[in-house]
Amino acid sequence: MSSLVDPDLLFPAEPSVRRIARELYGLVKSLPIVSPHGHTEPRWYALNEPFPDPAQLLIVPDHYVFRMLFSQGVRLEDLGVPVLDGAPVETDGRKIWRLFAENYFLFRGTPTRLWFDYVLSDLFGVTEPLTAANADRHYDAIAECLQREEFRPRALFERFNIEVIATTDGALDDLAWHRQIRESGWQGRVITAYRPDAVVDPDFDGFAGNLDRLGEITGCDTGSWAGYLDAHRQRRAYFKSCGATSTDHGHATAETANLSRAAAQELFNRIRAGSTDERERRLFRAQMLTEMAKMSLDDGLVLQVHPGSWRNHSPSMLKRFGRDKGFDIPTSTDYVAALKPLLDAVGLERDLTVIVFTLDESSYARELAPLAGVYPALKLGPAWWFHDSPEGMRRFREMTTETAGFYNTVGFNDDTRAFPSIPARHDVARRVDCAFLARLVSEHRLREDEACELAPELAYTLAKKAYRL
Amino acid sequence: MSSLVDPDLLFPAEPSVRRIARELYGLVKSLPIVSPHGHTEPRWYALNEPFPDPAQLLIVPDHYVFRMLFSQGVRLEDLGVPVLDGAPVETDGRKIWRLFAENYFLFRGTPTRLWFDYVLSDLFGVTEPLTAANADRHYDAIAECLQREEFRPRALFERFNIEVIATTDGALDDLAWHRQIRESGWQGRVITAYRPDAVVDPDFDGFAGNLDRLGEITGCDTGSWAGYLDAHRQRRAYFKSCGATSTDHGHATAETANLSRAAAQELFNRIRAGSTDERERRLFRAQMLTEMAKMSLDDGLVLQVHPGSWRNHSPSMLKRFGRDKGFDIPTSTDYVAALKPLLDAVGLERDLTVIVFTLDESSYARELAPLAGVYPALKLGPAWWFHDSPEGMRRFREMTTETAGFYNTVGFNDDTRAFPSIPARHDVARRVDCAFLARLVSEHRLREDEACELAPELAYTLAKKAYRL
Amino acid sequence: MSSLVDPDLLFPAEPSVRRIARELYGLVKSLPIVSPHGHTEPRWYALNEPFPDPAQLLIVPDHYVFRMLFSQGVRLEDLGVPVLDGAPVETDGRKIWRLFAENYFLFRGTPTRLWFDYVLSDLFGVTEPLTAANADRHYDAIAECLQREEFRPRALFERFNIEVIATTDGALDDLAWHRQIRESGWQGRVITAYRPDAVVDPDFDGFAGNLDRLGEITGCDTGSWAGYLDAHRQRRAYFKSCGATSTDHGHATAETANLSRAAAQELFNRIRAGSTDERERRLFRAQMLTEMAKMSLDDGLVLQVHPGSWRNHSPSMLKRFGRDKGFDIPTSTDYVAALKPLLDAVGLERDLTVIVFTLDESSYARELAPLAGVYPALKLGPAWWFHDSPEGMRRFREMTTETAGFYNTVGFNDDTRAFPSIPARHDVARRVDCAFLARLVSEHRLREDEACELAPELAYTLAKKAYRL
Repeated sequence: MSSLVDPDLLFPAEPSVRRIARELYGLVKSLPIVSPHGHTEPRWYALNEPFPDPAQLLIVPDHYVFRMLFSQGVRLEDLGVPVLDGAPVETDGRKIWRLFAENYFLFRGTPTRLWFDYVLSDLFGVTEPLTAANADRHYDAIAECLQREEFRPRALFERFNIEVIATTDGALDDLAWHRQIRESGWQGRVITAYRPDAVVDPDFDGFAGNLDRLGEITGCDTGSWAGYLDAHRQRRAYFKSCGATSTDHGHATAETANLSRAAAQELFNRIRAGSTDERERRLFRAQMLTEMAKMSLDDGLVLQVHPGSWRNHSPSMLKRFGRDKGFDIPTSTDYVAALKPLLDAVGLERDLTVIVFTLDESSYARELAPLAGVYPALKLGPAWWFHDSPEGMRRFREMTTETAGFYNTVGFNDDTRAFPSIPARHDVARRVDCAFLARLVSEHRLREDEACELAPELAYTLAKKAYRL
Repeated sequence: MSSLVDPDLLFPAEPSVRRIARELYGLVKSLPIVSPHGHTEPRWYALNEPFPDPAQLLIVPDHYVFRMLFSQGVRLEDLGVPVLDGAPVETDGRKIWRLFAENYFLFRGTPTRLWFDYVLSDLFGVTEPLTAANADRHYDAIAECLQREEFRPRALFERFNIEVIATTDGALDDLAWHRQIRESGWQGRVITAYRPDAVVDPDFDGFAGNLDRLGEITGCDTGSWAGYLDAHRQRRAYFKSCGATSTDHGHATAETANLSRAAAQELFNRIRAGSTDERERRLFRAQMLTEMAKMSLDDGLVLQVHPGSWRNHSPSMLKRFGRDKGFDIPTSTDYVAALKPLLDAVGLERDLTVIVFTLDESSYARELAPLAGVYPALKLGPAWWFHDSPEGMRRFREMTTETAGFYNTVGFNDDTRAFPSIPARHDVARRVDCAFLARLVSEHRLREDEACELAPELAYTLAKKAYRL
Repeated sequence: MSSLVDPDLLFPAEPSVRRIARELYGLVKSLPIVSPHGHTEPRWYALNEPFPDPAQLLIVPDHYVFRMLFSQGVRLEDLGVPVLDGAPVETDGRKIWRLFAENYFLFRGTPTRLWFDYVLSDLFGVTEPLTAANADRHYDAIAECLQREEFRPRALFERFNIEVIATTDGALDDLAWHRQIRESGWQGRVITAYRPDAVVDPDFDGFAGNLDRLGEITGCDTGSWAGYLDAHRQRRAYFKSCGATSTDHGHATAETANLSRAAAQELFNRIRAGSTDERERRLFRAQMLTEMAKMSLDDGLVLQVHPGSWRNHSPSMLKRFGRDKGFDIPTSTDYVAALKPLLDAVGLERDLTVIVFTLDESSYARELAPLAGVYPALKLGPAWWFHDSPEGMRRFREMTTETAGFYNTVGFNDDTRAFPSIPARHDVARRVDCAFLARLVSEHRLREDEACELAPELAYTLAKKAYRL
């Protein structure tokens, strides 16, 4: 580690607690990375081409970065973020980088700052804090690195000590990149995850066409409920053949339903016929979560639910820049009533794993820990998205552990598109967990030998086990 | 204390803060236990029989324990939890104990672990952490203790230094065990509390029959509103004669109502006639909270409201195992609108005490502290159930004190069926409060002499005062 | 500072963190006070008359003080709080003061206690903790001070090192005191802020008459939508001429609307005709927030929204004592849906500043930080009202910084009527922020040089910049 990342980063200041945290961290800092949920591109590992310039790699695609700059008056066009109608945006990586460097102070106190400093220092060997004054020098240093063999995706994958990484791919994806990776002979374990939103959510762009396409791909009759379900089964099997151990569902709410076969069929028919009734469309999404859980019982795929984000809150930003531009805003989310139909159906199954995430921290202690602390099928996903941060992860542990314990949680997800930041994100999570454990030990709530057992479980084992990797 | 419970348990690591916490704890650790709200069996104190084997005492009846094991795939049958239809379950205490010991690591970071270690060590003299390897030895040691005179209920009551303990008994209960205790000449102060859910909640099993029975017991005409209210008054008086100083109400929400006499009478008639209108049934429960508060004004009983739990979330578990099996899940709970009718009616009364509990911590700072910080009749119950834990109690103090102060809170409730764990629970609460006060002192927000005054108030005096004991 | 306020007040106990906090605090403790939002009386600065007796200055008008005493059974009449119907109340300041002193222990752990001790010690030179025993002596000492020239409002303003203070004045106010201040030649900068609730909220007492009066004052036809909007524009311009840089809106919810001109006009006509339809009245308030934001785009006034308080929760207290008696209770507040119409209309404007406050801390991390962390027009107001306290401000930083950063926040508001407590309130805020920064530095999440830059920004610069002062 260089001077940008202190060896004691995120450890409590009190010397006796810090000593314990250091010791625990020593047990986990070099463990392989298990990344069971993320959004890196399989293409990168398949083609193994050099990454583009520093700005295109680190700034332009990272909505954590550009949303903060935008909130302070920086135009997205000046950061090189593409406009849907093709209007010109900044393409000079150096200019984008300078603009970022001038505004880097805005990230003080944010996890982006921690991740970014880690990447600068640990990956690119930069030792001086980024400022407007040294922006060009840093840019050159990084650009130089990116041209080298050892900064290509596969080399980084190995350098990062990634044992396995999952991408997230749509139900209609042919997984060609994944096949190409497997056929390439490269040993890196890159697996897929089944994300069927486009063929499950009637509000998804082009839903009807997506169902037609699903029929073509699978040879199933997606005009009928039975055929539609069969098509899912086929795709799930295909995804499994490309390594998938999980499915992922980005619904707006945690609502589930468990209709009779006849009622589900009738609902499907109305939805297939293009029903615009919002309640029916919601009910269909709700029903499909339960269907997916039932299929998981058969094929063993772990089901992940990520509810609670109001996507694309600003219509004019959506229109100009498209999705994923920082305008996804969390909302108050209910789980107790919402998950009940699914839990009534399959919640007591010991061979099923349903991992629930939340953006509403008020549900941690109130709803999610009590639910996960009793239903065998339910596990808690880690602190997610806005809460994937030191304070967020600390609150997660403080608010879930006493009711759900550690063993109903599933380790860390980096959940990121930002490939270079993956080690930074896991490092932050490991440090925060070690700091939490160190506090428990220092307050005699846990013995040190137990913390030494738990630290690697939180950093590594629980993720492998929960995701069946 | 043995090696399983460190003398500095739960005290902050920073030496100067720890020193203050220790000092404060020294003032309270030996204070008598006031337990104004709980669920131990009056039968135990009446008969004073030996407790059964270690598993039947410590595991089988404790839903904190078996729900966690169940969440990780252990079958309740294997833990000896009785099945309603009489299907066979494990009855060998030793086997149950071993299964528990093998899985004891699951409780790391939970309050159950703290309580359990305290019981093992302080009550049974066990000095070695429980593991699969020593399970049998621990079992034998505990079993041996349980056969001794000094481990009978009354002896433990005295050893625990319990000044007074309240049980919770249904409105139809004859309180025979309480009478027997009083007549026995034993000096232990075991009192009752009036819990009328079965005759107040139209959704309660056998509600209509319960009202008939209430009429028989009291000689009041529970077919009329006036007679029904009179019956409550009689029962309350009878409970008072068995020591009761409080009533307790486990409604699903905090909803209250304050109908005119005529409207209430009409509503009662519809309910008595078996109305299935859910709004009417809710309104009746709401109205009855206000009626109870008005009766409290007359007879001085303290009213406790415990809302916000979705009881028996899993219907198949309810059907197989019955109530109280860990499937009660907290929900988002409103107080500001819900309590208004009751507060409009009696909230300004200085001679009334209404104690409100919550399972929704987001209401602490937002609703409950502001309400208790102005209405003379309202006090805050302690951190409850899932939140009766170190982090939960810390959050309670951090989120309520600045608005409601300490003096609008009512000390600690152990709220437990697990008799042997009562000293452990009070000890944890005392330690957490001392740690909180120590932080205030160390940050010069409170003088040390004030903290020395407050510590015994939080541990002892406030409970006595609030519950009129 | 005297012995009542420790130099290390509110700093973490751990010596290395405390050292950093002290150092940061050293940079800000003497910075001028910028008070962009408050409720002091412009009359005080205009007339510069001596303040009345200690009780009338420090107790009778402070709802933080008397609500706590009331919650513990003290009658407001005995504290000198005026009754609307003119019934007699205590007028002997010394008696009121004694009653307060006897009950001063009730404030342990509250911010009122910190502020009060600061005032006693820093302003009045009292060195002994207030008790019943020394109440009279303290009273005499304060009373003696209040007769001196240097305790008159303008002298205190200067002694407090107030660079600028904003009062809050109704839309119909003639701002005569403000004009008098300006014409007096005194250099103290006292500005106004535009609070149009009385002419924007159809539920406001005398709304129709208020609109007539608005028409008279401005010469606009407030019988028409266009004239009504013009009247606002005129008043805003007039307020600007008396220094206003902001408007303030105390709506019950954060609801906004963005109707077409025709629909808005029609709605206005119905409201002007006295519509009693609650939905229409809500919609009108919602629409007016957006109208105000649009006017802000033109005239540069910063818009403040303060939603989420259920005003005058107790009707009998309202009837007897009037508004602002401690019975305003926070409620669960939505921002994501509520602010959308306004944000859709003007949220992307870089020249607009909308400052949002909340009483619902569960919205900090879930809603407000994500919104402020992307919309250029949106900034987060500081921890407010019940949350303007050490724990409240700490939670504010912990729950907003990681997503919104520091620079989407706007410094501190004292928001107070209690003029003598202004330095105390700013001091507490500065200390809490320094403690927070010190923790970040000690955990290597921020460099010390960055914290040294941030501390004065949080204490001084951000408020000036956000409020355009």
